Amino acid sequence: MDLTAYLEERAGLVERALDAAIPPACETPEPLHAAMRHLLFPGGKRLRPALALAAAEAVGAPPECALPIAAAVEFVHTYSLIHDDLPCMDDDAERRGRPSVHVAFGEATALLAGDALLAVAFRVLAVAEGSTERLLAASRDLAEAAGSLELVGGQVDDLGFDPNDVDPARIESVHGRKSAALIAAAVVGGARLGGAGDATLVRLRCFGRAVGVAFQIADDLLDEGDEDGCSLVKAVGRDAARERAEALLDTALRGVDTLGERAEPLRELARFAVRRSE
Amino acid sequence: MDLTAYLEERAGLVERALDAAIPPACETPEPLHAAMRHLLFPGGKRLRPALALAAAEAVGAPPECALPIAAAVEFVHTYSLIHDDLPCMDDDAERRGRPSVHVAFGEATALLAGDALLAVAFRVLAVAEGSTERLLAASRDLAEAAGSLELVGGQVDDLGFDPNDVDPARIESVHGRKSAALIAAAVVGGARLGGAGDATLVRLRCFGRAVGVAFQIADDLLDEGDEDGCSLVKAVGRDAARERAEALLDTALRGVDTLGERAEPLRELARFAVRRSE
Repeated sequence: MDLTAYLEERAGLVERALDAAIPPACETPEPLHAAMRHLLFPGGKRLRPALALAAAEAVGAPPECALPIAAAVEFVHTYSLIHDDLPCMDDDAERRGRPSVHVAFGEATALLAGDALLAVAFRVLAVAEGSTERLLAASRDLAEAAGSLELVGGQVDDLGFDPNDVDPARIESVHGRKSAALIAAAVVGGARLGGAGDATLVRLRCFGRAVGVAFQIADDLLDEGDEDGCSLVKAVGRDAARERAEALLDTALRGVDTLGERAEPLRELARFAVRRSE
Repeated sequence: MDLTAYLEERAGLVERALDAAIPPACETPEPLHAAMRHLLFPGGKRLRPALALAAAEAVGAPPECALPIAAAVEFVHTYSLIHDDLPCMDDDAERRGRPSVHVAFGEATALLAGDALLAVAFRVLAVAEGSTERLLAASRDLAEAAGSLELVGGQVDDLGFDPNDVDPARIESVHGRKSAALIAAAVVGGARLGGAGDATLVRLRCFGRAVGVAFQIADDLLDEGDEDGCSLVKAVGRDAARERAEALLDTALRGVDTLGERAEPLRELARFAVRRSE
């Protein structure tokens, strides 16, 4: 399949959902809404939303039914990047080649823009059409993925990570919470809104966690300059890290074998996430 | 009625719900969970949760059914205080006579503890027993109250408020978003989980907004030392501000006349919120 064309088409759907959920930049208070949009448009590859849509497809549902969780996960991802970049955290002045939000809008507005993006993530699920039971379950998954035992907890452990610690298990525990939990919430949430049963959701959760950790290893392979935080590449070297990412991808793909042909876009996205070279 | 005893009894219920929703302080990562609990226990008067429980009572439901929204609102309130106190915001080293969270745990952990409290607010609603339709609607109300058009937007406008601006309408607009929206979400959410119909919810929303603005004026009357932010007391003087708070209280109380005797605790809490002297 032509993954670039597929990603572009899906990004178009997602773009409209994201845009519709955030007040226009000119809405009062103006700097806040402009700050909320700064990192969101143009965004990144929209990989998490694409995974959510592909997961709905993988369980036989139209991809559009996963748009609420796709948008919600992208909002949580964007909020976490804004807060990560703040001076008291990683203190990064740039993100995707542009000034980071606190550089462009000041620290207080960046902090609050992140806060508001986290709130809007839950709003977008709560106002969506569809089964309230599925939407509430997706909201629970997202709240857990964003919470102190997952994303935020992984962030704390990443900030305090001993640079001499080369224990792969501890490194993967940080990746699992900081990166993979949200990716799993996208995959599971997409399938949930698509009507998947519990057994499929369990499989997709394992798939999402494994792909998420492998994605983070791939990120570290691409981003050699980054000396902060924990990295499997630093701990075990490039070759062993690449091998581990491939092993995780393999496990992930085998776990969704039974979903058949309609899960092929989901598999292809996983391969792309782990093997991408840019 | 004996409001002190009533508040204490209700605070006991709420305390247990809050405690059950947050991992213990010794749970990994330890400083994060300790930081999340620092401002939460011991907390303040738990007025917002008490209003949620009294709103359920006011529509003929057992108060306990409002515990999920009571806890969720208290988590959002606590997160907003932690972020407000940060150096890039109000830069307050103390809160309720104790070191604020960033003084006790560092800025990064305080930021992340606030983030995690916001996420757990939505989790507590999503995992609650009961009607998924009502819980999802309460989640929507809460997300909107915490979002860029309400709490966070009011915060931005409060930070940038011109100290020479004495326009009461602009001051009340900030109070309405920064304080009253969350109080209204507590009242409306409690009634929603108690099974109230739309007409009652509309009434209670007006009640919550009016009580919330009056509560903020009362706060400013008590807190004369605070030179930051907008204050009706600074703008129109103590007597006129007190009169305005009483007028708002009166409007609020008249709006819930039709709810009869069982709404008396809700009314009594509103009187307390606006007239308290400590």
